[in-house]
Amino acid sequence: MSVLIVGSTALDSIKTPKTENPRLLGGSASHAAVAASFFSPVNMVGVVGEDFPKEYLKLYRKHGIDLAGLQIKPGKTFHWSGEYELNMNNRRTLLTELGVFETFSPELPKAYQRTPFVLLANIAPALQHHVLDQSSGAKFVVADTMDLWLNIALGDLIKLLKRVDGFVLNDSEAQQLTKEDNVFNALKKIHQMGPKYVIIKQGSHGSILSGPKGLFICPAYPLKQVVDPTGAGDSFVGGMMGYLASARGSLDANLRRAMIHGSVVASFCCEGFGVNRTTKVKRADIAKRVKELEQLTRF
Amino acid sequence: MSVLIVGSTALDSIKTPKTENPRLLGGSASHAAVAASFFSPVNMVGVVGEDFPKEYLKLYRKHGIDLAGLQIKPGKTFHWSGEYELNMNNRRTLLTELGVFETFSPELPKAYQRTPFVLLANIAPALQHHVLDQSSGAKFVVADTMDLWLNIALGDLIKLLKRVDGFVLNDSEAQQLTKEDNVFNALKKIHQMGPKYVIIKQGSHGSILSGPKGLFICPAYPLKQVVDPTGAGDSFVGGMMGYLASARGSLDANLRRAMIHGSVVASFCCEGFGVNRTTKVKRADIAKRVKELEQLTRF
Repeated sequence: MSVLIVGSTALDSIKTPKTENPRLLGGSASHAAVAASFFSPVNMVGVVGEDFPKEYLKLYRKHGIDLAGLQIKPGKTFHWSGEYELNMNNRRTLLTELGVFETFSPELPKAYQRTPFVLLANIAPALQHHVLDQSSGAKFVVADTMDLWLNIALGDLIKLLKRVDGFVLNDSEAQQLTKEDNVFNALKKIHQMGPKYVIIKQGSHGSILSGPKGLFICPAYPLKQVVDPTGAGDSFVGGMMGYLASARGSLDANLRRAMIHGSVVASFCCEGFGVNRTTKVKRADIAKRVKELEQLTRF
Repeated sequence: MSVLIVGSTALDSIKTPKTENPRLLGGSASHAAVAASFFSPVNMVGVVGEDFPKEYLKLYRKHGIDLAGLQIKPGKTFHWSGEYELNMNNRRTLLTELGVFETFSPELPKAYQRTPFVLLANIAPALQHHVLDQSSGAKFVVADTMDLWLNIALGDLIKLLKRVDGFVLNDSEAQQLTKEDNVFNALKKIHQMGPKYVIIKQGSHGSILSGPKGLFICPAYPLKQVVDPTGAGDSFVGGMMGYLASARGSLDANLRRAMIHGSVVASFCCEGFGVNRTTKVKRADIAKRVKELEQLTRF
């Protein structure tokens, strides 16, 4: 089955103490769509400007990502620039130019409206609502978010949580949303806000799922070198949704392995700038790391 | 088989925003010995003063802990006092009175010298060396440590690492010791210092083993309430060594399950002040949480 992914499509300029990497393919939808594409057909909804490099359109297509929902508008593509410290944990934003993203209104081509799996990747909650309004055939909807929306669009986000099946956020966002230091208490409070499935991402410590079948502690793949963690969270949730859409059987039975596959795709994402490493990955590379994670956690 | 445990035996006064808990049974050897006692006979080596409450000696004995190696000296028992913040993550030391611990020289009763499993719980590296000098029958030696010894006795610690089979430390100590932010690179560097097995503890994120059979990602048991984390690391390594001493078959085959059992005993430790919760645990309670951890990590 297919996955519908809506989110940001951007150019990312990423500085580290060692290198500068201007105008990489970035944005939550780009990372999530590439990650999902290893498992399922992807319908992507986003917007780019006329300056968007043709090679990036080719890259999407090479991954079988359907671009009927990608608007190309007069103006500039959303451009984000950030700088990482040496340990790759702390980053600061140097520049944000919204460009055509400022007036973006996601419109679903008719063929997308019945896509069963819907990933509302990180984007303003109002736009996530707008996509849901058009997703008449959605069977399983997951939303991602970021701290920005907790700060400036909390009301919209709270309303969104009543409309989605699953919600993904990181540990500091979960703490901000629930005022709970303890991750398990935070999970409980977020369930009370609506979603049946809640996943809290913990960076290099993996992630935790809470759902009707209880908790799942999902490991991160051990990485000796993190080149650029930008987009790792988007890759995780994209890979997870792609895997879910491809798997037979009950959702509860598939969700753990879906998270493991998302975790593995996210590990590749961290090993290169932008999508440089992820786009070179083969299904066999993913399968190998999944097997390794099985070995690393068995007792 | 038996475990020999040497470490501190102390009275801990622990303040939290809600309560004060004076003169609890504490110290690395106490926590580790109680934890190990669920699985194996324990020979404990330590020192207390004449003020040491008789009820605590009874408590050790109730756990089958052999006290032939516990010196009772004129003077006061080592007394540590600390205060936790509301989130139970940050603590500060209010007071340290070494008492009889200041001149402690661990002496192994003859019967202890051939104990096959030796845990050098957190204590000055010079004393850990002194115990090893007497442990003629040791088959598997593990050392724990703390940041204090990295700061004031690094030379002794480095020498110790060449004499032990396993070394346990937490993530910030590993970073301090190796100057490596990345935990997997830190593991590699610590192996180069000597130990065949290295375990890095990551608090509520569990722990990671690196050994001849590769890595093992060991989860922490999910806790909704942490009452007092003091001694959790000691309980982890104590439970692990107790389990190892009790298990048949090869060490490599047992080590993963040993860590899981240590992790579970540590979870109980966190649920009460001092050893209050741990000493009420039954083997069946441990087995139940081990089963839960299997369920929580399976995919």
